[in-house]
Amino acid sequence: MPGEFELIRRYFSRPTPQTVLGPGDDCALLAPTPDMQLAITTDMLVEGTHFLADTDPAQLGWKALAVNLSDLAAMGARPRWALLAGSLPEAREAWLAAFAEGLFDCAQRYQVDLVGGDTTRGPLNLCLTAIGEIPAGAALRRDRGVPGDDLWISGQPGLAALGLAHLQRRTQLPAALADRCIASLQRPLPRVELGLELRLRGLANAAIDVSDGLLADLGHIVESSAVAAEIFVAQLPSLPAGADPVLARRCQLAGGDDYELLFSAPPASRPAIADLAARLELPLWRCGRLRGAAAIGLTLLDENGQALTIDERGFDHFG
Amino acid sequence: MPGEFELIRRYFSRPTPQTVLGPGDDCALLAPTPDMQLAITTDMLVEGTHFLADTDPAQLGWKALAVNLSDLAAMGARPRWALLAGSLPEAREAWLAAFAEGLFDCAQRYQVDLVGGDTTRGPLNLCLTAIGEIPAGAALRRDRGVPGDDLWISGQPGLAALGLAHLQRRTQLPAALADRCIASLQRPLPRVELGLELRLRGLANAAIDVSDGLLADLGHIVESSAVAAEIFVAQLPSLPAGADPVLARRCQLAGGDDYELLFSAPPASRPAIADLAARLELPLWRCGRLRGAAAIGLTLLDENGQALTIDERGFDHFG
Repeated sequence: MPGEFELIRRYFSRPTPQTVLGPGDDCALLAPTPDMQLAITTDMLVEGTHFLADTDPAQLGWKALAVNLSDLAAMGARPRWALLAGSLPEAREAWLAAFAEGLFDCAQRYQVDLVGGDTTRGPLNLCLTAIGEIPAGAALRRDRGVPGDDLWISGQPGLAALGLAHLQRRTQLPAALADRCIASLQRPLPRVELGLELRLRGLANAAIDVSDGLLADLGHIVESSAVAAEIFVAQLPSLPAGADPVLARRCQLAGGDDYELLFSAPPASRPAIADLAARLELPLWRCGRLRGAAAIGLTLLDENGQALTIDERGFDHFG
Repeated sequence: MPGEFELIRRYFSRPTPQTVLGPGDDCALLAPTPDMQLAITTDMLVEGTHFLADTDPAQLGWKALAVNLSDLAAMGARPRWALLAGSLPEAREAWLAAFAEGLFDCAQRYQVDLVGGDTTRGPLNLCLTAIGEIPAGAALRRDRGVPGDDLWISGQPGLAALGLAHLQRRTQLPAALADRCIASLQRPLPRVELGLELRLRGLANAAIDVSDGLLADLGHIVESSAVAAEIFVAQLPSLPAGADPVLARRCQLAGGDDYELLFSAPPASRPAIADLAARLELPLWRCGRLRGAAAIGLTLLDENGQALTIDERGFDHFG
């Protein structure tokens, strides 16, 4: 069986055109663009916690990078570099080859150089670190929400959680919907272009990516910005036809793994955001607003403005 | 039990004075020093592979960061920032508190800001990413060894592997030596000052940190630099008194986990390197040389210049 260094050379060494020194030394060397700040994030994916044992390795490779790029997108950063550390129960070459293919698909799509990493033996665990660039002072931070801001959500939050429920046989989706939901779960599209455009054009005040569920991640904006928030349930995307509506609503509000962007923007941005949605061919839903608050908090309102009970707060690994 | 975010807030949020935006948002924001390049590295520590289940969590916290700082040291970079991703079987607060204490001990000692990370559930796995700064073109690379260079090793390579053999009852060390070896294993001192001085003063051509064993890591310099190397066994540090000499020699040549620096330097650097050893109070052993090579390779020579057999090549996780 090939050794650790041979495995790295064979599957994870590709050209790194935007990097001074790529894999193979003690460190990679990066030359940041002058006057740019770096946005950096790391995410760990664990078998049994974040993905099922039989997950397609190519899709897992894509997702491991994509979830990190989603964090860059939420700050409005331009992705540039990534590192991969992985622990594997054994060196299954076919698995590694497929994993690398998915990872590099994603890296190429978003113009990221894989510059280094670490491989070791142990229970399957993949830890990606991603680095992007952003001009000083321009980042979309979660603590910059302003009372009066609209709340916007991209795409179709909840599909990933529905896909997981289907795979775990907690529900039965029609075949076409199942495919779509499983693709959302296994091959999420980080909203890099959206984050870049929102930042470049100064349209948004606060942003976060929805990894733990819409309400849970909105809660982070609310807490960090010290505001209250209202979600107008009737303005959320329509629930997908063919799914149990109670489960679908729960997934939409509290399902993790969507990697859509949730952002707050002043009402003056509405026309430009509508333009942006059309240009990116990505639905953007104006689904709530931020308010000044005596008490920080989060309210769900139905079509008549009546408050609904919140019983699903999203995902907390140690809650 | 406290949730994921509360655990992070409680144990892993400390001031980050050299950072634009520390933990708490989708990404951390770093402002690199103008005209500096970044050296970046990631290492994963897995229970059962890299440390024993009953390892003291404070020492593990120290080591998880130290092994990454060792990679920065080997490039001659100045450590600045780190990220921690960890998967834990459960949220043991006392364990986490001790782990954080060890981690921040090391961070403070080497002036590193912990700027972000990720926590999740799963088999115990700790993945650190460290970032340092270095002027363009100044990095100590493993591919820059030159025929005629002396080979130098810092400190006492092999003690960590002896300590592990003692803990695993494969040998029995006298108590004082056992303590010293176990400290080398559990609380390694990354040679950051040595790497910085070698780089600042232009003394070395190539460098690597000894994580996989002296011969294995020398092999990387030999391959990358396309040279041959000779190690003069009689010029290596004396074997520790009280240890089985055969085991001690094997640990010295092939034991992992030492995190000493192995570097090549022109003979003209000898007086300055001797000065440096005195000033840093760190022994530096001139133990070999690089040669031009028809065949790239590695030779061990005894005190009479006779070649010895090499049967221990160090540690390869999938070999």
